[in-house]
Amino acid sequence: MKAYQANILFTPTPERFEMLEHGYVVVGDDGNVVGAFASLPDEYKSIELVDYGNQILIPAMNDLHVHAPQYRNLGIAMDMELLPWLNTYTFPEESKYRDIKYAERMYRRFVRDLWKLGTMRAAIFATIHPEASCLLADLLNEAGMGGLVGLVGMDRNSPETLSNTVEEAVRGTLRVLNHTASMPLVSAIVTPRFVPSCTPEMMTALGRLANDNHLPVQSHLSENQSEIAWVKELEPESSCYGDAYRRYGMFGQTPTLMAHCCYTEGEEFELMRKNHVFAVHCPTSNCNLGSGIAPIRRFMNAGIPVALGSDVSAGSGFSIFRVIHYTLQMSKMKWVHGAHKEAFLSLSEAFWLATKSGGSFFGKVGSFEPGYAFDALVIDDSDLNFDNYTLQHRLERYVYLGDDRQLKHRFCQGKEIQAPKI
Amino acid sequence: MKAYQANILFTPTPERFEMLEHGYVVVGDDGNVVGAFASLPDEYKSIELVDYGNQILIPAMNDLHVHAPQYRNLGIAMDMELLPWLNTYTFPEESKYRDIKYAERMYRRFVRDLWKLGTMRAAIFATIHPEASCLLADLLNEAGMGGLVGLVGMDRNSPETLSNTVEEAVRGTLRVLNHTASMPLVSAIVTPRFVPSCTPEMMTALGRLANDNHLPVQSHLSENQSEIAWVKELEPESSCYGDAYRRYGMFGQTPTLMAHCCYTEGEEFELMRKNHVFAVHCPTSNCNLGSGIAPIRRFMNAGIPVALGSDVSAGSGFSIFRVIHYTLQMSKMKWVHGAHKEAFLSLSEAFWLATKSGGSFFGKVGSFEPGYAFDALVIDDSDLNFDNYTLQHRLERYVYLGDDRQLKHRFCQGKEIQAPKI
Repeated sequence: MKAYQANILFTPTPERFEMLEHGYVVVGDDGNVVGAFASLPDEYKSIELVDYGNQILIPAMNDLHVHAPQYRNLGIAMDMELLPWLNTYTFPEESKYRDIKYAERMYRRFVRDLWKLGTMRAAIFATIHPEASCLLADLLNEAGMGGLVGLVGMDRNSPETLSNTVEEAVRGTLRVLNHTASMPLVSAIVTPRFVPSCTPEMMTALGRLANDNHLPVQSHLSENQSEIAWVKELEPESSCYGDAYRRYGMFGQTPTLMAHCCYTEGEEFELMRKNHVFAVHCPTSNCNLGSGIAPIRRFMNAGIPVALGSDVSAGSGFSIFRVIHYTLQMSKMKWVHGAHKEAFLSLSEAFWLATKSGGSFFGKVGSFEPGYAFDALVIDDSDLNFDNYTLQHRLERYVYLGDDRQLKHRFCQGKEIQAPKI
Repeated sequence: MKAYQANILFTPTPERFEMLEHGYVVVGDDGNVVGAFASLPDEYKSIELVDYGNQILIPAMNDLHVHAPQYRNLGIAMDMELLPWLNTYTFPEESKYRDIKYAERMYRRFVRDLWKLGTMRAAIFATIHPEASCLLADLLNEAGMGGLVGLVGMDRNSPETLSNTVEEAVRGTLRVLNHTASMPLVSAIVTPRFVPSCTPEMMTALGRLANDNHLPVQSHLSENQSEIAWVKELEPESSCYGDAYRRYGMFGQTPTLMAHCCYTEGEEFELMRKNHVFAVHCPTSNCNLGSGIAPIRRFMNAGIPVALGSDVSAGSGFSIFRVIHYTLQMSKMKWVHGAHKEAFLSLSEAFWLATKSGGSFFGKVGSFEPGYAFDALVIDDSDLNFDNYTLQHRLERYVYLGDDRQLKHRFCQGKEIQAPKI
């Protein structure tokens, strides 16, 4: 058992920060939080105490949508919208991951960058390649970080160099699942790329795979209007894009992440609510590809679970703090364009999305309440805190102005995580 | 005379980058560019050569709208829209600048941060306080950086602690003008805060001051719909918000910067075009305050000059590179919401706005064409360039992923600028 002393902020509920100035988090030997306290209870006075002085201690970031094999394209190629962007830039890059040497070089950097920006757990799209996908799981596991690795199924409207058969997709996913069986924080996730890339046979098989093995599912939903029109053509029997996943058992039948949801409304909205499907909000990506802005406030009001994603490389960086910033900004854009009808998000709400809400997909993750995994970041903001800001303002300034330089310690499931080697 | 060897990019026109891999910029003793060359002409073979190897050399950034006395509020207090934001957070902070010690402490940091993020020239709102405004000019001048310092006129709808009389505003501006008379790169700019803060007497006097002394003018325009409605009430004789400046001689009669212009259309649009009034685009600010998005493509198509501004502290950082990023993203948001009618901006266009277009307000600034001031940044992007990116992709990655760490040298008017002391 260990106690950490620092200025502690976390969000048990979205509405406000729980703040403990010079407070304590006690962590058990299992890496879970025993409790967060304003002053250290007597019973813990004899345990080891780590004193972080005036630094800030918060839950670590969770990235619920990121494409590891797009690492090289980060920060380039943002002059097209989704569908031509995929064909021109993304598919050719992902095709390279059949080369395990190339995959290793890039995946090492990918894991290092997640770490660097304070993301301790991620739901990740890999590629169709089983060997590279298992390697990615290894790298996360060796680092001590958490994640779900998705071997991607895609068997139509995809280049020959980046297509698999139904059998390959199912076997590849099971291979990742078996490969990660002994890893404490890494597992597999069923990953149909998106409806346009998957034949009904692929969807049927992946849906069965998810349901038979109680595996979570991740995919893309209603990101872009051309994409939505295309899905309508490809799946005329589905009443909406989301229904095309539901029909195959991949829309909440097991825990499900759907990235984007920029245009989700009506029946799709209802389906997400009823089936408790996560909307993964990726505002930096949505701005870079000119996709649109998801109605996050409406999702939250309706009880649809929401998480945040970097969506690298359509998203232009790994920082979930930056995504928090964009979440706030884009909620204000929705607010001004919607004649102020729906309130924009507060900092605590966006922070909650990045921590406790997103973290819930991995279990009890993203808070310092008892029983939660101690996933945490220690922030030395002394360069930003030159004028006695309040604790909440200090965190706010870090979100808007900080970067990896202020992140001094990173914990995942109670263990301090050192920089992964590249 | 001196020559600089590096990978050179600049934008003589918005449509494309001029790129010289391992090229040369020759700079005269006056600090102006003699020429940029793919290989060094024989006549310059004997001059001193500075070899920046594989680094990138680009024109420095220009920030055409920034509030120096809002420095402390950077990264906090973004839970309100413009008018309540001014009253709650901004006016109380600016009132502190009557204390010259406080002003010095903050203005030193302000100048250092401009420098740090690669901005070599800025059009700056100061406060109503002449002493602090002159100090700000001194600090810029001592650093060797360029700028226009605006002593702010505001005599209505402002707190008592932050109001001046017409005479104080005129005298104060003249004091800054005289104080900067011998400074090579710093001067004064006439600065009515915005129409709601200025009585007709204030507007009349400042307009006269600008026209009599051929001084440039800066103010705010059509940022927010409540503000526009308020101006309509306050100035019923004006046909539009812009006309309220024009009537007092401050809408292009001398060189004029108008920040925001989110809702400029119709007659105001025409007035800006005819009078060559600059629209200063501040997209990070507009997102943070939920203001709206200016129609930059339409401005550019019509020949309305456009520059970029950080608008600290409604804008949440000093980086004009970040503003380039947002300019691209917000042009894509306009594009998707406008049914793809107007093309979104390209990287070279947004870069041109930040360099040559914005720089033109200071003279021949923002390009490496002959006769332009050598305002430049040297970028060591070796940590970002791990896979042989093209030169343009290297710059693009710097814009999206880089920060002050990659900026190795900064030049203003031919002189290398060292970190200003804080």
